[in-house]
Amino acid sequence: MGTEERDEVEYDVFSRYCPSRSTLEHVTGRWGTLTLGALETGPLRFNALLRRVDGVSQKMLAQTLLALERDGFVDRENLSTAGLHVEYRLTRLGRDTAAQLLLLTGLLESRMPEVLAAQLRYDEARTGP
Amino acid sequence: MGTEERDEVEYDVFSRYCPSRSTLEHVTGRWGTLTLGALETGPLRFNALLRRVDGVSQKMLAQTLLALERDGFVDRENLSTAGLHVEYRLTRLGRDTAAQLLLLTGLLESRMPEVLAAQLRYDEARTGP
Repeated sequence: MGTEERDEVEYDVFSRYCPSRSTLEHVTGRWGTLTLGALETGPLRFNALLRRVDGVSQKMLAQTLLALERDGFVDRENLSTAGLHVEYRLTRLGRDTAAQLLLLTGLLESRMPEVLAAQLRYDEARTGP
Repeated sequence: MGTEERDEVEYDVFSRYCPSRSTLEHVTGRWGTLTLGALETGPLRFNALLRRVDGVSQKMLAQTLLALERDGFVDRENLSTAGLHVEYRLTRLGRDTAAQLLLLTGLLESRMPEVLAAQLRYDEARTGP
């Protein structure tokens, strides 16, 4: 493969034991991507996120937010002392990551006609005329 | 070309029934991301991919490649008539997507010190001194 010169500690998502691997799992995937993407326009409460990330369950959203908070992508802010009103907002790291993810989802959305045509060709080649 | 004329159709990954949602699932997540990323430097055979995407099982890699092929991100090429030597390569769509994904993994790798510091703060706040 050849040696790459880097002046910092090397993190490598391709290596299964690298800590970046689990962060990659938290950030990508449908729920990580959509949760970060939804927060990109501003802070949201849990129920608003639940509506925006269409199809996510309460349990999956709670798990996703917890992992994103622990990794430093999302901050959880109590708006009342009783803790009844909690708002989620992106950190600086979360904003940078969300911007990157939205470029990806934008690319996918814009190329869906190609994807659907490929699916059709694939299925037709396998079912015959 | 019929499908490509539907330029005005809006695809939205946030909507659970949009076909872009399942494509997002195939492309992101650790195995989709790493498989596309691994192929960015050139075509690879199955066993080479298995080594490069460290930690993936044969079954998961096969499932990932099948979904990526059906969606038009990856082409499968038989190098021998017996079908013993199969090579996987990115399509144009796959290259565009892989480039975007590698920007994301590069961002995560470069920000891992921040992530690890956040994890430490999170855990310490919950376990106490």
